[in-house]
Amino acid sequence: MKKSYTAIIGLVSGFAILVISIMTSGDIRSFISLSSIAVTAGGSFAALLISFPSKDLMKVPKILKLLIEKPEQDRVRLITTFSELARKARRDGLLALEDDLTGMEDEFMVTGLQMVVDGIEPDIIREILTLKMETTERRHRMGQNIFSKWGELAPAFGMLGTLIGLIVMLANLQDAAAIGSGMAVALITTFYGSLLANLVFIPIASNLSVQTNEEMLSKEMAIEGIIEIQAGTNPRILEEKLVTYLSPEEMTMMKEEKVSTQEALSYE
Amino acid sequence: MKKSYTAIIGLVSGFAILVISIMTSGDIRSFISLSSIAVTAGGSFAALLISFPSKDLMKVPKILKLLIEKPEQDRVRLITTFSELARKARRDGLLALEDDLTGMEDEFMVTGLQMVVDGIEPDIIREILTLKMETTERRHRMGQNIFSKWGELAPAFGMLGTLIGLIVMLANLQDAAAIGSGMAVALITTFYGSLLANLVFIPIASNLSVQTNEEMLSKEMAIEGIIEIQAGTNPRILEEKLVTYLSPEEMTMMKEEKVSTQEALSYE
Amino acid sequence: MKKSYTAIIGLVSGFAILVISIMTSGDIRSFISLSSIAVTAGGSFAALLISFPSKDLMKVPKILKLLIEKPEQDRVRLITTFSELARKARRDGLLALEDDLTGMEDEFMVTGLQMVVDGIEPDIIREILTLKMETTERRHRMGQNIFSKWGELAPAFGMLGTLIGLIVMLANLQDAAAIGSGMAVALITTFYGSLLANLVFIPIASNLSVQTNEEMLSKEMAIEGIIEIQAGTNPRILEEKLVTYLSPEEMTMMKEEKVSTQEALSYE
Amino acid sequence: MKKSYTAIIGLVSGFAILVISIMTSGDIRSFISLSSIAVTAGGSFAALLISFPSKDLMKVPKILKLLIEKPEQDRVRLITTFSELARKARRDGLLALEDDLTGMEDEFMVTGLQMVVDGIEPDIIREILTLKMETTERRHRMGQNIFSKWGELAPAFGMLGTLIGLIVMLANLQDAAAIGSGMAVALITTFYGSLLANLVFIPIASNLSVQTNEEMLSKEMAIEGIIEIQAGTNPRILEEKLVTYLSPEEMTMMKEEKVSTQEALSYE
Amino acid sequence: MKKSYTAIIGLVSGFAILVISIMTSGDIRSFISLSSIAVTAGGSFAALLISFPSKDLMKVPKILKLLIEKPEQDRVRLITTFSELARKARRDGLLALEDDLTGMEDEFMVTGLQMVVDGIEPDIIREILTLKMETTERRHRMGQNIFSKWGELAPAFGMLGTLIGLIVMLANLQDAAAIGSGMAVALITTFYGSLLANLVFIPIASNLSVQTNEEMLSKEMAIEGIIEIQAGTNPRILEEKLVTYLSPEEMTMMKEEKVSTQEALSYE
Repeated sequence: MKKSYTAIIGLVSGFAILVISIMTSGDIRSFISLSSIAVTAGGSFAALLISFPSKDLMKVPKILKLLIEKPEQDRVRLITTFSELARKARRDGLLALEDDLTGMEDEFMVTGLQMVVDGIEPDIIREILTLKMETTERRHRMGQNIFSKWGELAPAFGMLGTLIGLIVMLANLQDAAAIGSGMAVALITTFYGSLLANLVFIPIASNLSVQTNEEMLSKEMAIEGIIEIQAGTNPRILEEKLVTYLSPEEMTMMKEEKVSTQEALSYE
Repeated sequence: MKKSYTAIIGLVSGFAILVISIMTSGDIRSFISLSSIAVTAGGSFAALLISFPSKDLMKVPKILKLLIEKPEQDRVRLITTFSELARKARRDGLLALEDDLTGMEDEFMVTGLQMVVDGIEPDIIREILTLKMETTERRHRMGQNIFSKWGELAPAFGMLGTLIGLIVMLANLQDAAAIGSGMAVALITTFYGSLLANLVFIPIASNLSVQTNEEMLSKEMAIEGIIEIQAGTNPRILEEKLVTYLSPEEMTMMKEEKVSTQEALSYE
Repeated sequence: MKKSYTAIIGLVSGFAILVISIMTSGDIRSFISLSSIAVTAGGSFAALLISFPSKDLMKVPKILKLLIEKPEQDRVRLITTFSELARKARRDGLLALEDDLTGMEDEFMVTGLQMVVDGIEPDIIREILTLKMETTERRHRMGQNIFSKWGELAPAFGMLGTLIGLIVMLANLQDAAAIGSGMAVALITTFYGSLLANLVFIPIASNLSVQTNEEMLSKEMAIEGIIEIQAGTNPRILEEKLVTYLSPEEMTMMKEEKVSTQEALSYE
Repeated sequence: MKKSYTAIIGLVSGFAILVISIMTSGDIRSFISLSSIAVTAGGSFAALLISFPSKDLMKVPKILKLLIEKPEQDRVRLITTFSELARKARRDGLLALEDDLTGMEDEFMVTGLQMVVDGIEPDIIREILTLKMETTERRHRMGQNIFSKWGELAPAFGMLGTLIGLIVMLANLQDAAAIGSGMAVALITTFYGSLLANLVFIPIASNLSVQTNEEMLSKEMAIEGIIEIQAGTNPRILEEKLVTYLSPEEMTMMKEEKVSTQEALSYE
Repeated sequence: MKKSYTAIIGLVSGFAILVISIMTSGDIRSFISLSSIAVTAGGSFAALLISFPSKDLMKVPKILKLLIEKPEQDRVRLITTFSELARKARRDGLLALEDDLTGMEDEFMVTGLQMVVDGIEPDIIREILTLKMETTERRHRMGQNIFSKWGELAPAFGMLGTLIGLIVMLANLQDAAAIGSGMAVALITTFYGSLLANLVFIPIASNLSVQTNEEMLSKEMAIEGIIEIQAGTNPRILEEKLVTYLSPEEMTMMKEEKVSTQEALSYE
């Protein structure tokens, strides 16, 4: 787990910019409206209750924690781990890997390597791990879908609230003095709906999507590595293959590791 | 079948929020308009009659029942069932599975296992079951498509109704007092169209989509299980494979089962 | 060919709802505007002339006939036909199928079975029939594309007409009395564009799409059946396979057929 | 090359309809605005300069010529050509085809058949021709992308121009008489942007897309034919295969050819 | 690296057109608003901070440099290089290629050819290079996604700013003189949001997309070339294959090379 506050900084600074923009031009109090929040956030959440199973909606608080505590995708360390495992497997046999499993945190790696130790066939290992990866992805995409849908529904309910305000105002046009404030109140719901969608729900959906992609990439790498270890691939080739998953930044970080790895290799 | 009232709660609370929002700001009676319902719900349904075959539209009431009575996708029980079947098949042969078919509710499982008992080749079983799954999916997607399309057409007809109201009002501008109420009436159709789309049709389409995905996942699992039983796969490996379809929540539920399963295995 | 009037009923009732809505609130004559039809239907058709080859646009009247006279997709009868053909082929050899070809209406079936009789290899038969199916689909999708595009262009030209009306009105604001009627006239083009798109073009595109999907499903079934007949598959297995293409409603219809088929099988 | 004036007729008649609509309701001179053209066409083209490489944008005039001079896709003649080539190849050997290459216009056919004459392996020929087809398609899609993007950017710049006009007008509200004409001028940019997009850019993109699809279909057919000729396929089977690419209209045209072809075949 | 100023020219001329349009109709000073920039550019960037990892957002300045300094995709030179390498490999063996690697700039080519020299199996080389290509593409697409998202968020924040302005204005309607200027100020945020999206962010996303496509095409070509060199393919066939990746313009450039290449071939 890696703590990241970028999302919080974005959220706070985005709100700050809008609040400052309001305060420099008018009165912030005319923007505070509990009923507008009820219509946009509450109404769109009611629509979410119809759209998604409650067991998935109840995971929303847990999903929100992912914005701060991201599971770390340290692909450089993953390569080092695989290098060591590959060398050990070649030297002491696949069964020797069992000792390494106890300390491992990543449950996906443990499942895969345990199957290697158990001597299950490569095709079945790949199939099971790919299935496991797809199940995880399907579950993560559900979280994104909830926030994407919320990002669509919030402005729609904002507009519904504005229509309510406009219809009420137009039905009582005789009070000319109230027209302006009536329209102001009506527009606030649109403002809230658009704000929730564009500063909260849509960015969160995007954040979750990037995280899922990153995690899937690490899992793909792990599957590749596990299969190669079982096949007894030369550690150098294994590393060459896994390095292709790295970004240039990660490659630079990898350099020192590589040096030591190649030294180790030269003694074999 | 599992009764779920979340969708109903969502629908009722969504309407409640909007009604309360209307009643705190104006008169609810100015929002009741049969002609607006006729134009938005009726007009868009007329367009649906052109868009879809009547035999599919007639299934709409049956589809709506799915919002409350969801076919249960108990994947934990499915694994237990498969574990037992696999052990029985190994012990007593594939023909012994015939007895288990009589009590089974899931017609998909029955079809698949009957073919196993009949000694049909694995490739053909997989092909037939996959086809069956795709046919079911195609039929379910039709239900979603109807509600998605309705969710697009309702606001469009809402806008048509508003245009009618505006044109009528603008053609009679001399009566200045009627302008406000004319526009209010005109906007109500937009309100209804947007309300139907965002609180009813679009969430229902989303609900059906999630249900279909869940059902397809169970069916995929069932196909996998049936094929493995025929292949005489070790029950432990079969279980390992099927467990990958579970979410972490389902896995926790699975734990107790697993313990007893492994005990059973240790006696074999 | 099966006559279906649902589309016509939808079209007429949709128009009726809107006309009644107009007549209860204002004067229907203010909605009749030849120039608005010219701009929305004519202008968008002019844009279609640029978008699609004239040979495809000339098929539009023929495509419209499909809304009423749908080619029947009787998949239950198709299964019966294949059952009989399969039994005959097993009993009397593939050459015996030639007699059945003369009476057959479906040109796709004839082409496929003729190739079976001619002893062409299964791979080539499947390839040619799949190609034939894709060519048909490509042609049908063109019809849908024309109506989808029309459904996008009509509202766009409606808006262009409204802009023309607004600009003319705004350039002559001195005549205050004409403002209302000017805007009313301007909005009528938007009304027409949206009406054509949402009650005519988009539903027709959807109707054609559903028909194409249905036809492709029957063709897929036919390819499967033809290949299995050539392979000399057991008629019961063939039927089992083809039945998977049926919806539950079609399966119920199939029941009686099945009984008689199984009786026939029991004598073999 | 086949001259087609449908696109020009569409363009001219679309403009004519709008001009007549303007002239019957107001003054055409209030719609002529060089600055609006500068903002919509010029501004959106400036954005295109950022979006696409200049070497691709410079092909726009050449692409526009395709609207009138379409490369002919005469698939009936293509079949006749292949029939003759197949018969010649069977009679006189593949080397005999070299004579036919000199007169051939279609560079794609020449490349393919030359490889056949050169005795290059079928897999490589298919690979090279498929690559060639994909390269052509990629290049053609670039042209469509430019016009699609232009069709998105033009209305956006139209709206920017309207916003400029509105802001200028609103900042000088004291001159009440100028409000109407100010808004009229502002709206003209939206009118131009929407006009360019819906009557010019979007239809052109669609036209190019249909042309590319047609060309790719012919190329697919040509690849099939070339490979079959090399394989020494029976001319009748080859024809049967290629005929599946034809539309019913093309098949009717094919009939006479077919008669003569079958006569020719009967003498073999 | 090839310097290209087209994007800069587009950006400058786009701004120039809009500034001239403003200056001919009103006062440019009423369009300068720091707070509007804060809300549109700042607010949407805050939302980006939530949407993307900071390590990716920090690459934005580096990505912007790509608009001017494009990595050159000289596919004609690539073919010449491969021709020479292929001839050398055939003459002197694959090991002889090692000398050519030192001078090579393209790191992708070096990795691939080094593996050829090292005698790694073709399947593994193709797999590693394809992985490498996909990793590069995934990284580049991230840059595009950031700008696409920005192009969606900027107008949304522009509208939020306008809503703030409108609500403030409507809450103070008593000051009739301020209505016009209030609305003018409110609209400027929409103007900025739309301007940033349509002249800056969306075109940049499109530019990056085209560049990525071009680079991927060159990499595909390189993979093909490397595999063929290892297979010892005839240089003429290799060239024939690679030429299919060229556009007609590149082919014309290729002509002279081709002449000299064929001369060289005739001496072999």
